[in-house]
Amino acid sequence: MRIGVIGASGYVGGEIIRLLLSHPKVDVNIVTSRQHAGNYLHRIHPSLKSFTDLVFSELDYSKISDKCDLVFTAVPHGNALEIVKNLYDLGIKVIDLSADYRLHNADDYEKWYKFKHPYPKYLSKSVFGIPEIHRDEIKNANLVSCPGCMAVTSILALYPLVKNNIIDKEHIVVDSKIGSSGAGANVVLATQHAMRAGVIRPYKPANHRHTGEIQQELDEIAKTHVNISMSPHAVDIVRGILCTSHTFLTKDIIEKDLWKIYRNEFQNEKFIRLIRDKKGFYKYPDPKFVVGSNFCDIGFDIDYDNKRCIALSASDNLMKGAAGSAIQNMNIMSNFNENDGISYSPLTPV
Amino acid sequence: MRIGVIGASGYVGGEIIRLLLSHPKVDVNIVTSRQHAGNYLHRIHPSLKSFTDLVFSELDYSKISDKCDLVFTAVPHGNALEIVKNLYDLGIKVIDLSADYRLHNADDYEKWYKFKHPYPKYLSKSVFGIPEIHRDEIKNANLVSCPGCMAVTSILALYPLVKNNIIDKEHIVVDSKIGSSGAGANVVLATQHAMRAGVIRPYKPANHRHTGEIQQELDEIAKTHVNISMSPHAVDIVRGILCTSHTFLTKDIIEKDLWKIYRNEFQNEKFIRLIRDKKGFYKYPDPKFVVGSNFCDIGFDIDYDNKRCIALSASDNLMKGAAGSAIQNMNIMSNFNENDGISYSPLTPV
Amino acid sequence: MRIGVIGASGYVGGEIIRLLLSHPKVDVNIVTSRQHAGNYLHRIHPSLKSFTDLVFSELDYSKISDKCDLVFTAVPHGNALEIVKNLYDLGIKVIDLSADYRLHNADDYEKWYKFKHPYPKYLSKSVFGIPEIHRDEIKNANLVSCPGCMAVTSILALYPLVKNNIIDKEHIVVDSKIGSSGAGANVVLATQHAMRAGVIRPYKPANHRHTGEIQQELDEIAKTHVNISMSPHAVDIVRGILCTSHTFLTKDIIEKDLWKIYRNEFQNEKFIRLIRDKKGFYKYPDPKFVVGSNFCDIGFDIDYDNKRCIALSASDNLMKGAAGSAIQNMNIMSNFNENDGISYSPLTPV
Amino acid sequence: MRIGVIGASGYVGGEIIRLLLSHPKVDVNIVTSRQHAGNYLHRIHPSLKSFTDLVFSELDYSKISDKCDLVFTAVPHGNALEIVKNLYDLGIKVIDLSADYRLHNADDYEKWYKFKHPYPKYLSKSVFGIPEIHRDEIKNANLVSCPGCMAVTSILALYPLVKNNIIDKEHIVVDSKIGSSGAGANVVLATQHAMRAGVIRPYKPANHRHTGEIQQELDEIAKTHVNISMSPHAVDIVRGILCTSHTFLTKDIIEKDLWKIYRNEFQNEKFIRLIRDKKGFYKYPDPKFVVGSNFCDIGFDIDYDNKRCIALSASDNLMKGAAGSAIQNMNIMSNFNENDGISYSPLTPV
Repeated sequence: MRIGVIGASGYVGGEIIRLLLSHPKVDVNIVTSRQHAGNYLHRIHPSLKSFTDLVFSELDYSKISDKCDLVFTAVPHGNALEIVKNLYDLGIKVIDLSADYRLHNADDYEKWYKFKHPYPKYLSKSVFGIPEIHRDEIKNANLVSCPGCMAVTSILALYPLVKNNIIDKEHIVVDSKIGSSGAGANVVLATQHAMRAGVIRPYKPANHRHTGEIQQELDEIAKTHVNISMSPHAVDIVRGILCTSHTFLTKDIIEKDLWKIYRNEFQNEKFIRLIRDKKGFYKYPDPKFVVGSNFCDIGFDIDYDNKRCIALSASDNLMKGAAGSAIQNMNIMSNFNENDGISYSPLTPV
Repeated sequence: MRIGVIGASGYVGGEIIRLLLSHPKVDVNIVTSRQHAGNYLHRIHPSLKSFTDLVFSELDYSKISDKCDLVFTAVPHGNALEIVKNLYDLGIKVIDLSADYRLHNADDYEKWYKFKHPYPKYLSKSVFGIPEIHRDEIKNANLVSCPGCMAVTSILALYPLVKNNIIDKEHIVVDSKIGSSGAGANVVLATQHAMRAGVIRPYKPANHRHTGEIQQELDEIAKTHVNISMSPHAVDIVRGILCTSHTFLTKDIIEKDLWKIYRNEFQNEKFIRLIRDKKGFYKYPDPKFVVGSNFCDIGFDIDYDNKRCIALSASDNLMKGAAGSAIQNMNIMSNFNENDGISYSPLTPV
Repeated sequence: MRIGVIGASGYVGGEIIRLLLSHPKVDVNIVTSRQHAGNYLHRIHPSLKSFTDLVFSELDYSKISDKCDLVFTAVPHGNALEIVKNLYDLGIKVIDLSADYRLHNADDYEKWYKFKHPYPKYLSKSVFGIPEIHRDEIKNANLVSCPGCMAVTSILALYPLVKNNIIDKEHIVVDSKIGSSGAGANVVLATQHAMRAGVIRPYKPANHRHTGEIQQELDEIAKTHVNISMSPHAVDIVRGILCTSHTFLTKDIIEKDLWKIYRNEFQNEKFIRLIRDKKGFYKYPDPKFVVGSNFCDIGFDIDYDNKRCIALSASDNLMKGAAGSAIQNMNIMSNFNENDGISYSPLTPV
Repeated sequence: MRIGVIGASGYVGGEIIRLLLSHPKVDVNIVTSRQHAGNYLHRIHPSLKSFTDLVFSELDYSKISDKCDLVFTAVPHGNALEIVKNLYDLGIKVIDLSADYRLHNADDYEKWYKFKHPYPKYLSKSVFGIPEIHRDEIKNANLVSCPGCMAVTSILALYPLVKNNIIDKEHIVVDSKIGSSGAGANVVLATQHAMRAGVIRPYKPANHRHTGEIQQELDEIAKTHVNISMSPHAVDIVRGILCTSHTFLTKDIIEKDLWKIYRNEFQNEKFIRLIRDKKGFYKYPDPKFVVGSNFCDIGFDIDYDNKRCIALSASDNLMKGAAGSAIQNMNIMSNFNENDGISYSPLTPV
């Protein structure tokens, strides 16, 4: 299959290309970057030196139309609105990594992103790209919108709890901690090393816009409204995210039964590992042990005093949280093996 | 004033000594360590080379009785039970950094620490060492028990909310993130650099024993029972702690009024800085900007959709979270200026 | 091919297994660990959960003899002396990761390791495992001894300079910087996170024992004695090593010609990338951009004022510096493709 | 004394102000920043919140003339040329942190900085600000130029060796490793956290311009020309620098005698600690154990095989490597106690 990557100079774009270059069934034909057009790809992604001689080009729809069957768009939020529509209209399959087609309801863009969506009817064509929840729809989709790393990581941990209707829907607190690559390649004072190293930095503790997509998905699963209270924090790692979802059980349920619920949902999922060990030092999910892989590690603990279930989920924000999920979606859309090109073991210690 | 430090080879012990060596009104006469007795202090705390020629000694009550007016005990939990009692009985003022005399109710030791407290009647002699809440009692105390870093940092942020009775007492989630020095100098696989670097590691997400002291203090402030749902996480820094306290407002209250409540409680406190800036990059508390100081930086954000108030508090776990608070308590007990020896500005960037 | 890994609980052992589990032509049948015998492998190497159900066993020569064609030994220096000899005598191919069979001259063990080698005649059977230099010998070897990460990384950068006889043999300074995984899983105060994070720690600046193997190889290449002045430093990363080799040119040679010399030696080598770019930010080798791969990136700069050539080489100490090289050697010994199972691109950013 | 700080928004400017605000004998009256004029200082240096209400202003010579007796200039190289001259001409004492007045010979600016110095006759008025070498000149200076962190740290370690004429002057290799704060607050891709974390990045391995000042000082000490071969590396810490100076002894000299030479030079220096311990884990200088202090820790090891003396020196690049030295110079120029305001113990662990 012939692939294009639009917005190929960012961390997500680079990760998509890294994975595709070792994927058994695809060729990367076009990689675009406005800023770096004409430059070798490996000048911006030095790791890929000796893997490819690709050169960044400007976005050119007719070339893409000629040379690509499927395109990944990895441009900043807002910039994908036109591009995705145009590619879709050209009959090219699109996997979008931005937020521009994640929300189904056009009003939600006004609420969370403060703009009026210009192509509301395309929203219904877009499938939300979590295979563990929407695999059948993805199979037949022409447009898949990949969730943000905070969304996919928290939704997967909360999914069994919400679906089985065992938690208080008013008090779902998602406290997430994320590495610096999640912020993208933004060159600002706050992300430069001397200011960013050593932080535990809350950002947008209330009303973070990724709340919108978590809300949307969990509402749909719950078939009613749930309250998602999400607060992200930047921590001093590059890759990885942990979501700590504090929920309150509405039923008397013990650990063993809760494991059954989780196993029931996820036992056949290749990219979800359920984590709980009473011995050893990997007792709960920790991104340290998924870095480089497409796994979302999920576990939980129960605080019986407060009837609290702490659902924990860890992933590599550039893999399962972005590029890995995107390839997983491509594999499903293309009838490839779902783990083609993304079956890496985590790299530990790193 | 003549000082002894028992358990002087750990990180907290070392930090107490570092501060005392520059304190204008005290002399450190005795530093003990079973493991390192006979060794120069600076062999274990290399930073203090050229500041002192102190040598570790074995714990000897008669020497302490001769040479010390006040003693800091910084030994592991459980080990302070005898020592503190003995020193107290000798008429020496004690500031204990362990948990052994923090809880007022002997039953709570069985619940949280799984042992029967051998000296329950000494518990009532012990004042809980948060000056911002118990200053008057500390002034006259002979035994002060310093809270753990998670306790002091979260209690200070929650104090105005609980005291003013504006939050739901059933759903108080404290999600804390802490650096590696908080674990003490335990030499185990899980804390060695290659395994500990890069983690976002949940530990004891339910029933962490420091919950007990947070519970005790907030119950007392609320004059009723509150439910504290606390979950700590180890992150990849050495020094610093952030507590994200997710609470739910029971009143319609806007930001401006909530600031009033906080200012009202803390405006005269030298070691509390209220943080909220709409511009710049220090919008919320972050331990990055308190490291090396005795500050607890406090701020909040309101999530009106969910009526959630996210109270944020950051401190240096070895300073305000341990040794700094201990010296602050000493200053109060001794009628020194409260900020003598602990008025350092944070060290940034570091 | 059927494989055993002895000393499978360390970082190097874990990395060998990680690579072998995805290698197209081998099965891992036995993994031994005295300390963890009976435990699941993934309890010590959590990343490998879901990749294998292997269980650590005790070292049992008859089982190994039955079930393994080739064995990797990844035990601490000194511990491999007996094991390697025994396996060799059983007719099993051995790839040893310790230093016990790296030096050809028994006297050198007395000089560098302060012990008398018990099996000196086995030293001549052992091939030094740098394929780029000893590929033909490795092909037919039954015992390959893999170099330490400082050795392989520095030797590869110095090889063209020494072989072409263009540098002063008296003044070769190798200043190396290495991550914490290079120290192995030693649980001591100096390697625990709070003490090891943030260091730039010189260790053994003179007479570090890995000098012996660098010396041996370069002497052989030079066909005369060269003076290797090596000093290692621990820095605050987990994975990766940079060797800065300061050499002094004995000929007037310009950059272009020096590139020719390097290209001449390495142009067909799959795992060596020559790095020099005048633009972009990857101008010189940096382990950041090889982590997770088997590359040794090599580059240089010339300081004409001092006739100094600074040869720079970067690798992942657990890959090209240990496990990756070991698999590369296995591939050569077994007539597999040389890059089978080790053709990963670096993981960046991480 | 009344102080101004020009270029107060950078890391060095911030550190100078942090120290001055706790200095017993000075008042900071003016802090300038073109970019941030009108903003509160603590918006850029959040650590200083509650220590000062200073506001950044534009550079205004008449105000400075009215309100300042001494000015620190902490602007980028090239920008200080005019400012320093103007202040000097106004009769204001100046301590310059840039390189613009460090070199005595105007030609050296063409060699190292590629510009023609516009005010060559002011170069002779400028004293090179290393108190341990130039204390008497500093006492009477009106213009002191503080060395770069690589210069002061390496010169102090090499000074006794060069002065006592015991090393080969042709082969002096200075391999330095430095944290990210040393690069200043430059907002570029290469310094943003995801790209800068985890590096061991050589930059300008040959002909780094700070070589010029090291060369100048050591030539002067040697009273002849010495060859300085300097190569800097960026490592993954924020604060701290280690210089590993590889030198070759021209005399047979043993460790004990070399210690005598070092003690002889530095025994009365408050800010130099000689480090060598056979026990414990602080055997050689490491910036980890000087961070936050004005110390330069110095030690060495001898490699008798190669007649190599490895001189090691560690400092906090923002303290002894910049702001701390600047205050030390101010104290000397002003007849204050030399350690006023800079007698902090290192902050460990951090």
